[in-house]
Amino acid sequence: MSDTTDLRMPSVDPAALTCPAPLRDQSRVVMGHGGGGALSAELMRDVFAPAYGGDTLAQLGDAAALSLGGVRLAFSTDSFVVRPLFFPGGSIGDLAVNGTVNDLAMSGARASYLSCGFILEEGVELETVARVADALGAAARAAGVEVATGDTKVVEAGHGDGVFINTAGIGLIPAGVDLRPQRVVPGDVVIVSGPIGAHGVAIMSVREGLEFGVEIESDCAALGGLVDAMLAVTPDLHVLRDPTRGGLGAALNEIALASGTGVVVTEREVPVPPAVANACAVLGLDPMYVANEGKLVAFVPRQHADSVLDAMRAHPLGAEARIIGETVVEHPGMVVARTGLGGTRVIDLPIGEQLPRIC
Amino acid sequence: MSDTTDLRMPSVDPAALTCPAPLRDQSRVVMGHGGGGALSAELMRDVFAPAYGGDTLAQLGDAAALSLGGVRLAFSTDSFVVRPLFFPGGSIGDLAVNGTVNDLAMSGARASYLSCGFILEEGVELETVARVADALGAAARAAGVEVATGDTKVVEAGHGDGVFINTAGIGLIPAGVDLRPQRVVPGDVVIVSGPIGAHGVAIMSVREGLEFGVEIESDCAALGGLVDAMLAVTPDLHVLRDPTRGGLGAALNEIALASGTGVVVTEREVPVPPAVANACAVLGLDPMYVANEGKLVAFVPRQHADSVLDAMRAHPLGAEARIIGETVVEHPGMVVARTGLGGTRVIDLPIGEQLPRIC
Repeated sequence: MSDTTDLRMPSVDPAALTCPAPLRDQSRVVMGHGGGGALSAELMRDVFAPAYGGDTLAQLGDAAALSLGGVRLAFSTDSFVVRPLFFPGGSIGDLAVNGTVNDLAMSGARASYLSCGFILEEGVELETVARVADALGAAARAAGVEVATGDTKVVEAGHGDGVFINTAGIGLIPAGVDLRPQRVVPGDVVIVSGPIGAHGVAIMSVREGLEFGVEIESDCAALGGLVDAMLAVTPDLHVLRDPTRGGLGAALNEIALASGTGVVVTEREVPVPPAVANACAVLGLDPMYVANEGKLVAFVPRQHADSVLDAMRAHPLGAEARIIGETVVEHPGMVVARTGLGGTRVIDLPIGEQLPRIC
Repeated sequence: MSDTTDLRMPSVDPAALTCPAPLRDQSRVVMGHGGGGALSAELMRDVFAPAYGGDTLAQLGDAAALSLGGVRLAFSTDSFVVRPLFFPGGSIGDLAVNGTVNDLAMSGARASYLSCGFILEEGVELETVARVADALGAAARAAGVEVATGDTKVVEAGHGDGVFINTAGIGLIPAGVDLRPQRVVPGDVVIVSGPIGAHGVAIMSVREGLEFGVEIESDCAALGGLVDAMLAVTPDLHVLRDPTRGGLGAALNEIALASGTGVVVTEREVPVPPAVANACAVLGLDPMYVANEGKLVAFVPRQHADSVLDAMRAHPLGAEARIIGETVVEHPGMVVARTGLGGTRVIDLPIGEQLPRIC
């Protein structure tokens, strides 16, 4: 991938960017620059890629696919700044493992080793650090990945926020597996592994002290096993993506833009738990843009779709997998939803993230 | 390395830990927990290792040595929280590359790929971010390493400090190279690659607005080429370490403790630039504990010492390399300096770092 135009992906309609200051303050970092949407893409395109972008970074997948010493490796990193540190269904320690494990899984790789860098704020309780570390260890054991190397820095009180964690991960990409959006073609079937929106709403509810009648738990989980089960059906899946920041809407847009195909989803087929739907209605959120931490979306050749779906449903993390749409020749680069009323609406790439610091 | 007692390394004389609160507050994180000395080691031993430590983490080298797909890899991570972001001789962008490249080099590996995770504070100027990214890119090109994957998070103003960066790196360990403190034996020769203390003093001078008559520049540099030149003499070096946080004193102590040998250095042979010595005298610092970012210390079998020293001196980053001491059977685990007056003094493992946030 040496075509530098890929670095512009996901590109955005400039008209969509005429939103009010300070979101469009051109001189300073705003929260949306970390939101995984159009502002993040701009930062990558205009600042980071010109400074240090090379062929590998230009792949812009969840993980980079490398060749080192004759073996194919996936390599990925994520920093975690979630607030609060503990939430229903997980913690920053779980996210730090599963987030990176899942990025590797989206390239077909089973995570082998993680690095772990802590940035601690002076004055945070050691017991809190220990609880985070315990959660991180338990998540690593559950995902079958070893924390191989680490680092700890401390910043003065008021210059950090308790605990930040960065993890990077490496794993082997199996022979014959080549997952990237450029392989998507019209006619591919779009499958989501289960109900969406739980993670973002779980964070929001505990952060704001909101009650939605029933406690909504984060779906935070490691997807390596589910991906293995899918690849056992056929290594010829086209692309996988875990819809974290920006939710399913951002993930579908990134794939539509990078593949140059149109994506059509049938809105009523997109599984949204009633509690999540209710919470989103109250909060004015669109579940399509709410973050997940244990779901994936797959673009699968039509002839394999049913068998891949069966394999997913046979796995605990894919029990509620569904076909939600397909790719089409029409409206290349655009995601359109067929609504319940028989109309259509455009699912745009979000500017930033509706809920800051959800991972 | 399955011996879990290695996780206690570097162990410390408990008596040395009876220092005043709040440095010894047992319930909260203090700055010293990020200092690379005894408090950092305690955090690793008591919190992180029990939670997620495995055989690889127990190596406790600058980088982990792994086997993946039949290939020997080095894998390492560091977070960078240096203040200020730009200083004489470098920036956080240079450190983010060279710090991780050097950790890999200390295992004999030439860095191939880096990951790069930014944690930005809302409101920081985009121009500042761009300058950091440019410096990072220039340093990566100079070191011959490719930034392959990245991530950006943003935290609210007042919950970060401008720019934090984490990098992780991977590289191949050449055949026949096995660098670890356990290979050190009595009679090894201790070589330092050049004058020490410049990085820490450079940071301190610009942070505090101090003048020492002459501007002291950080020694920040990538050591992969120097290490290659040394390994070309013989792959049978015993251990390399880059004396960053905690300086040469901490690095020598870590190797003494992990190898179970005594280390003797001749104080007048340890090269300290006059400007650094003057600044340390003014500030009440011991140059032995001041951080470096472009130096290494090598423990070399005696029969190879002269030829390795020659090879180092032929490289620009080792032009002022010197033999500073040797390992002995006596006082295992302890570092002793022969002073200029003919006496000796013990070089202890520091508790924390004299200068917080120097990397």
